[in-house]
Amino acid sequence: MKVVVLGGDGFCGWPTALHLSMQGHEIVILDNLSRRNIDNELEVQSLTPIQSISIRLEAWHQVTGKTITYQRLDVATEYDRLLQLISDLQPDSIVHFAEQRAAPYSMKSSWHKRYTVNNNLNATNNVLAAIVETGLDIHLVHLGTMGVYGYSSVGVRLPEGYLTVKMTADDGAEVEQEILYPSNPGSIYHMTKTQDQLFFAFYNKNDEIRITDLHQGIVWGTQTRETRLDDRLINRFDYDGDYGTVLNRFLMQSAIDYPLTVHGSGGQTRAFIHLQDTVRCVELAITNPPAAGERVKILNQLTETHRLIELANMIAEMTGATIEHVPNPRKEADANDLAAANAGLLDLGLQPTTLRQGLLEEVTDIAKRFAARCDRSRIPCASHWTKQIAETQGDDDQLTLTLHS
Amino acid sequence: MKVVVLGGDGFCGWPTALHLSMQGHEIVILDNLSRRNIDNELEVQSLTPIQSISIRLEAWHQVTGKTITYQRLDVATEYDRLLQLISDLQPDSIVHFAEQRAAPYSMKSSWHKRYTVNNNLNATNNVLAAIVETGLDIHLVHLGTMGVYGYSSVGVRLPEGYLTVKMTADDGAEVEQEILYPSNPGSIYHMTKTQDQLFFAFYNKNDEIRITDLHQGIVWGTQTRETRLDDRLINRFDYDGDYGTVLNRFLMQSAIDYPLTVHGSGGQTRAFIHLQDTVRCVELAITNPPAAGERVKILNQLTETHRLIELANMIAEMTGATIEHVPNPRKEADANDLAAANAGLLDLGLQPTTLRQGLLEEVTDIAKRFAARCDRSRIPCASHWTKQIAETQGDDDQLTLTLHS
Repeated sequence: MKVVVLGGDGFCGWPTALHLSMQGHEIVILDNLSRRNIDNELEVQSLTPIQSISIRLEAWHQVTGKTITYQRLDVATEYDRLLQLISDLQPDSIVHFAEQRAAPYSMKSSWHKRYTVNNNLNATNNVLAAIVETGLDIHLVHLGTMGVYGYSSVGVRLPEGYLTVKMTADDGAEVEQEILYPSNPGSIYHMTKTQDQLFFAFYNKNDEIRITDLHQGIVWGTQTRETRLDDRLINRFDYDGDYGTVLNRFLMQSAIDYPLTVHGSGGQTRAFIHLQDTVRCVELAITNPPAAGERVKILNQLTETHRLIELANMIAEMTGATIEHVPNPRKEADANDLAAANAGLLDLGLQPTTLRQGLLEEVTDIAKRFAARCDRSRIPCASHWTKQIAETQGDDDQLTLTLHS
Repeated sequence: MKVVVLGGDGFCGWPTALHLSMQGHEIVILDNLSRRNIDNELEVQSLTPIQSISIRLEAWHQVTGKTITYQRLDVATEYDRLLQLISDLQPDSIVHFAEQRAAPYSMKSSWHKRYTVNNNLNATNNVLAAIVETGLDIHLVHLGTMGVYGYSSVGVRLPEGYLTVKMTADDGAEVEQEILYPSNPGSIYHMTKTQDQLFFAFYNKNDEIRITDLHQGIVWGTQTRETRLDDRLINRFDYDGDYGTVLNRFLMQSAIDYPLTVHGSGGQTRAFIHLQDTVRCVELAITNPPAAGERVKILNQLTETHRLIELANMIAEMTGATIEHVPNPRKEADANDLAAANAGLLDLGLQPTTLRQGLLEEVTDIAKRFAARCDRSRIPCASHWTKQIAETQGDDDQLTLTLHS
């Protein structure tokens, strides 16, 4: 198949592009390199020494004989070029990773809120409008997030997108309806993904665009079979307070003898998936598209759920790290239960990588190997969800910095 | 109260600004004049001869002694100026009309889809981010649409925003939850208003912004008590296929002996409200804000529901006009029932203007008076919801044009 990967230079996009190329698909990456530019803005670097996209692609060709092409393009602003490229390429699928994907970054300031909204919503709408305008039958695969559901537990297992509810009709009868699960996002970033769902529902209804929305849990891990083939193919690893996902931050912290910083009680339960499984899920999505006329296919892309404190305990046990509870910069429930359906991708053949299998390897192969590249001052989260939280916690963050740097 | 009216030069914004000024509120209009610019793009004009905003405001001052100030500002793109103005003005309320509001316009082409999404979503997010950034306790009143609910009838009266549903928990128990009514927009324009709802829910939850969202029916009528005070204050009247709302189009058609063009069977049921009631509803909203910490207040702003064919029959009966069924350019159900709650605004004191009261006056005072200014070629809807519809109907539109011009 011919596949365009939007955002194919990023944390999930890059290993996905390699995996799909390895499986024999013809891959074109479109990326504006925004993730690298944000590194410049935040004055941080991937813990792993990533290469420029050209060196990456050259290495891929040398190692595998396969060719991935790349064009620098901003999906959110360069509509005409996007349209022309899609018309020329006539891809079977477009995989859409071209969104700002960090919740803390999206909450840093008004500028960051506005950037995230403007970039993510225009990117998604541009892709959809372009597919309609070309008139081509292209399957769009989008990386959503489990965060669209929110974490307000009412004892109902989170479904894969759609929920059957009962309501009372005017004549007193009870009627059943299947609805998109009511969204409850916890950050501006997560909110944009709930708004994306409404784009998908509309374009699917009006233009019969075939769409798969993958609601992904928190990704952990750094490498996949393909990125391990050559050091120049190494994937990025973020440990900073904005882009470092919780598990990768814990791994990094354990590797440099920094206490594992747990926000609040750590009673928050979240969904997780290894990066190796992410790339496999995207492959399963593109090879199992919805039929013509089918509604948006929503799959939950997670393999395990854990309380954050349990994860911290597990890593502390493996590595001898200590745990420090710090004030939570987010506005969220201190503890929650989480049960979520994930049969869709398992039924398609996903075989999960478990945390117990992969964790230690990550600590030694990535976190310890590149520990010298770590800037300890970047570990605490410097984004606060509200002014009140910032005012209360400003000093605490300073204290944490002083204690450990 | 001090009130900023975003989009205060438009069809609803202008009479609202005058009404609030007449009631003694201090009014500042911010508007980028986009509605006038779109007239240039579409090569149409308001049937009524509207004056420039400066002449309008000068006339208002001469007639009433009251002062409304105005600054040209694009809410969607000029964030820093918007922030500064809000900080300086410290308004009690902001009324947000600054969105592209025509469904057919939003469906004309990729460019129009993208403009509507980019303008509407960034405008709403900018206002909300600016309110948060100023730290001021400002009540935001937004003009939503009944179209967020969609028109798929399951026999349940449309509530005012929130719906109680039952779902089955994992332990088999039935649990009740109140949710935002599942949205089902019928155009890109309506879709942006469903996405606006998600902005409001998030900023209300995270930042406790006080918000009222007014889900308005189709507005009819042209004048209000204030716009009638002087010819220079006259409001715009759109009869063209993009911006002319259905009832105003019928009135215009009857005035110039053009058949009343009904899309499809006319079995579509829609909600209506007279412009005089719109401005009163906004006044009721700003003087009855939600309490601190209260969730987003959603009110349905409609006074009557009618099938389109019934409206056409009513006007035909009054004026002797004929009716012509034309192919529907929209992708929508050919017929639907519609029952919607509207107690919120009635309880606050709204006294509806009924169709029977106001219709004939509109025909004589507006449609007949300015009939000579009508460009008949602009009456048919030239936007089609999909390529297929455009291909099927292209010829029919031509035919209609030929027949009647």
